[in-house]
Amino acid sequence: MFFPIQTYVERRERLRELVGSGLIVLPGNNDSPMNYPANAYKFRQDSNFLYFFGQNRDGLVGVLDCDNGIDWLLGDDIDIDDIIWFGTVKSVSDMSSEVGANGSKPLAALTEMVAEAKKAGRKIHVLPPYRHDIKILLADLLGTHPLQIQASQCLIDAVVEMRSVKSPEEIREIEAACAIGYTMHTAAMRHCVPGNTEQFIAGHIGGIAAGYGCITSFQSIVTQHGEVMHGYPTTHPLQEGRLLLVDAGAETNSNYCSDHTRTSPVGGKFSQQQREIHDIVADCHDLAMEKAKPGVRYLDVHLDVCRLMTERLKALGLMRGDTEEAVQAGAHALFLPHGLGHMMGMDVHDMEGLGQQYVGYDEETRPSSQFGLASLRMGRRLQKGFVVTDEPGIYFIPALIDLWRKEGTCAEFLCFDKIEQYKDFGGIRIEDDILITVDGCRPLGEEQIPYRAAEVEEFMRQIQEEDA
Amino acid sequence: MFFPIQTYVERRERLRELVGSGLIVLPGNNDSPMNYPANAYKFRQDSNFLYFFGQNRDGLVGVLDCDNGIDWLLGDDIDIDDIIWFGTVKSVSDMSSEVGANGSKPLAALTEMVAEAKKAGRKIHVLPPYRHDIKILLADLLGTHPLQIQASQCLIDAVVEMRSVKSPEEIREIEAACAIGYTMHTAAMRHCVPGNTEQFIAGHIGGIAAGYGCITSFQSIVTQHGEVMHGYPTTHPLQEGRLLLVDAGAETNSNYCSDHTRTSPVGGKFSQQQREIHDIVADCHDLAMEKAKPGVRYLDVHLDVCRLMTERLKALGLMRGDTEEAVQAGAHALFLPHGLGHMMGMDVHDMEGLGQQYVGYDEETRPSSQFGLASLRMGRRLQKGFVVTDEPGIYFIPALIDLWRKEGTCAEFLCFDKIEQYKDFGGIRIEDDILITVDGCRPLGEEQIPYRAAEVEEFMRQIQEEDA
Repeated sequence: MFFPIQTYVERRERLRELVGSGLIVLPGNNDSPMNYPANAYKFRQDSNFLYFFGQNRDGLVGVLDCDNGIDWLLGDDIDIDDIIWFGTVKSVSDMSSEVGANGSKPLAALTEMVAEAKKAGRKIHVLPPYRHDIKILLADLLGTHPLQIQASQCLIDAVVEMRSVKSPEEIREIEAACAIGYTMHTAAMRHCVPGNTEQFIAGHIGGIAAGYGCITSFQSIVTQHGEVMHGYPTTHPLQEGRLLLVDAGAETNSNYCSDHTRTSPVGGKFSQQQREIHDIVADCHDLAMEKAKPGVRYLDVHLDVCRLMTERLKALGLMRGDTEEAVQAGAHALFLPHGLGHMMGMDVHDMEGLGQQYVGYDEETRPSSQFGLASLRMGRRLQKGFVVTDEPGIYFIPALIDLWRKEGTCAEFLCFDKIEQYKDFGGIRIEDDILITVDGCRPLGEEQIPYRAAEVEEFMRQIQEEDA
Repeated sequence: MFFPIQTYVERRERLRELVGSGLIVLPGNNDSPMNYPANAYKFRQDSNFLYFFGQNRDGLVGVLDCDNGIDWLLGDDIDIDDIIWFGTVKSVSDMSSEVGANGSKPLAALTEMVAEAKKAGRKIHVLPPYRHDIKILLADLLGTHPLQIQASQCLIDAVVEMRSVKSPEEIREIEAACAIGYTMHTAAMRHCVPGNTEQFIAGHIGGIAAGYGCITSFQSIVTQHGEVMHGYPTTHPLQEGRLLLVDAGAETNSNYCSDHTRTSPVGGKFSQQQREIHDIVADCHDLAMEKAKPGVRYLDVHLDVCRLMTERLKALGLMRGDTEEAVQAGAHALFLPHGLGHMMGMDVHDMEGLGQQYVGYDEETRPSSQFGLASLRMGRRLQKGFVVTDEPGIYFIPALIDLWRKEGTCAEFLCFDKIEQYKDFGGIRIEDDILITVDGCRPLGEEQIPYRAAEVEEFMRQIQEEDA
């Protein structure tokens, strides 16, 4: 419960209005077993449950009755054994009152509530489940197979409509996450010296995330192989002259996220080749900040970035031909196989579990199936209060280069002989979280993590000097 | 694959022999979604899969045919999209060869393999599943409900027999985990100063675990409320004069665990009252080390510890009456509601998912239902090569004290008026991991984390002085 009671009451009221009729069942998350039933990963409440019911405990289910406007919080109270092992917690009745629900019931009541509603011919609305225990629960309730749960489209649409625009209170929490993210990324830059392992740096910044907040908002990407989009840390020590790509974020105790990427030179100095590519990525990052504002489609911002990237790669002799045609053909996607960004909020890819086509796209802006563009998670028109990431990157992926060269993909726009010279380059990504404001956008977080090549070098010099 | 190929071949051969006939299906783990399908917790392979098939990747299933001695590794090879997002990995066929299995097949082959075996009237052996995706998989294979999977008793027995005794190679890995644990616990002692939050310390030592190994072996317990057995860290700052209980362990990249507990005085000095209780716990810890050896039941070591604790609590005026009668009645369990220890290995509670009654007990030594003793996870006779924890504790649990006083539980052995004076004490636990040797036991880990009160104070003084 990070927000006032009225926030939750109003959110549920609006949700019931948007959905109109029927029974909405919103299961919270349970503990997720790691290597045996009682050894669970750190508990993470479901974001939708948090948004509407605010309680950060396992074993709860929220039920909203759209027809009579009554909200229930279901859960079982603890006994003396629970107190011995896990301490005293609030009663379900108190938790229900805290978020302004109308009443509480034991968890077992859920089966009858759903059965009665079904009997009365009322619709049961559920969101797409992603945890398998919840799939089993819903399958039993709805009489289907756990892997064939039918989610309610109007419930999905209502939740997306509500959660897409962040309130000032939510933005404050995201800013708090960005502050932890700043500490994480500057610590990574401090430790970006030859000999330290990727795993050491990932562990260290994960410790910062967990020390000041709840958890990392996703598994940190810490890799000298930046060309692997999700390059998880290995035990390889950092080597002078390589680049270290760190894509990592924090989650506050209120479960709001940050998500930043920086690519730093191991040893503190970019090579000429690295600096040239880094400058292009930084300029693409800045172009997106210039273009992003209410009413503009993020798909168009993405395409503007692709055009600039193509122009600049042409100047370096890596691409050729007409820029517009190259971008239309998706030739730049050899270097940028992902999208410019995604929504961010309580989920680092906000609401991704509801279906990317409903979160990042709409009737006007449809998802593409073209390689590269298909990975753009956010295409639709921006609105004031949206929080999205701005994360261009340039990668040299040996397997993809070999495949495209062999198959002649976009051969008229790609200078493969020159590209071959970059095959051990790795990859560079720069990512910030931006808030769409009334007439533009601004990066979130009090201090921006250095990202221009010269700033990065100067910052690393200073911070590493402190250690020496 | 941390061990030579022959290790895995021999383990599977022995398993097939012990089980005798039928088809053994050993699913590996998959990624476990945190807050949406693609945002997973850090991958943790299933320990049984690791033990027999050694491969640390998601999406694999091992199949052992006891009737023809053939072992299969099932899994799907990756495509170019996987390479772009997650990098290149070995083919399933290569992974199969690496661990000496007879061949590989796509995952989809599993359904037919099981169907054919069932049709031929052969038994399908599975272990008790704890991940819900695996429950759904097995339910579909076996034609039952996901929550009603019947595990194979002879498979459970065979795995327990094999995994209980640790090989020298396994012990080396546990020692490596203990070395990380040493760094974690001494770092916690360093930061055990007023003002730091429990969460900060938990985050910091979690960062050390992940930086030098894979992950913490369980969610770290870092709490000023040591009387809560699993007291997870809060944002409360440490207060001078309180005790900080830290129960935490590391898991190596080979997935072997450590598990230690220390209870340190915030500010660096135990009060007289704290020291008295701490000394009792330390002496109980030492008594267990004296008693534990091959042929001795761990249940009897536990009871010896309970007797010593009762004697000493009588001397402090907290208990009274005949020691033997008090222990028989379970009066000491007001202070020690848990058991002396548990098996440890690849799982921090080793093999707990197979059923505690099969891992820690046998036909000779049966589990108890008495409060306190019922929580002893390991009772049976020790053997050379067992690794168990030695973790006595004394806790003052207000809710339990009130309940027992009200109900008159063990009233003839408990001095409730005196106990009331300790209600805000918290709790103390000291825990080490011990290896049963040929004629006794020894603590694992090159250096033992200081645990006698005077050593703890001196160590904290030194380590905190370095920071000043």
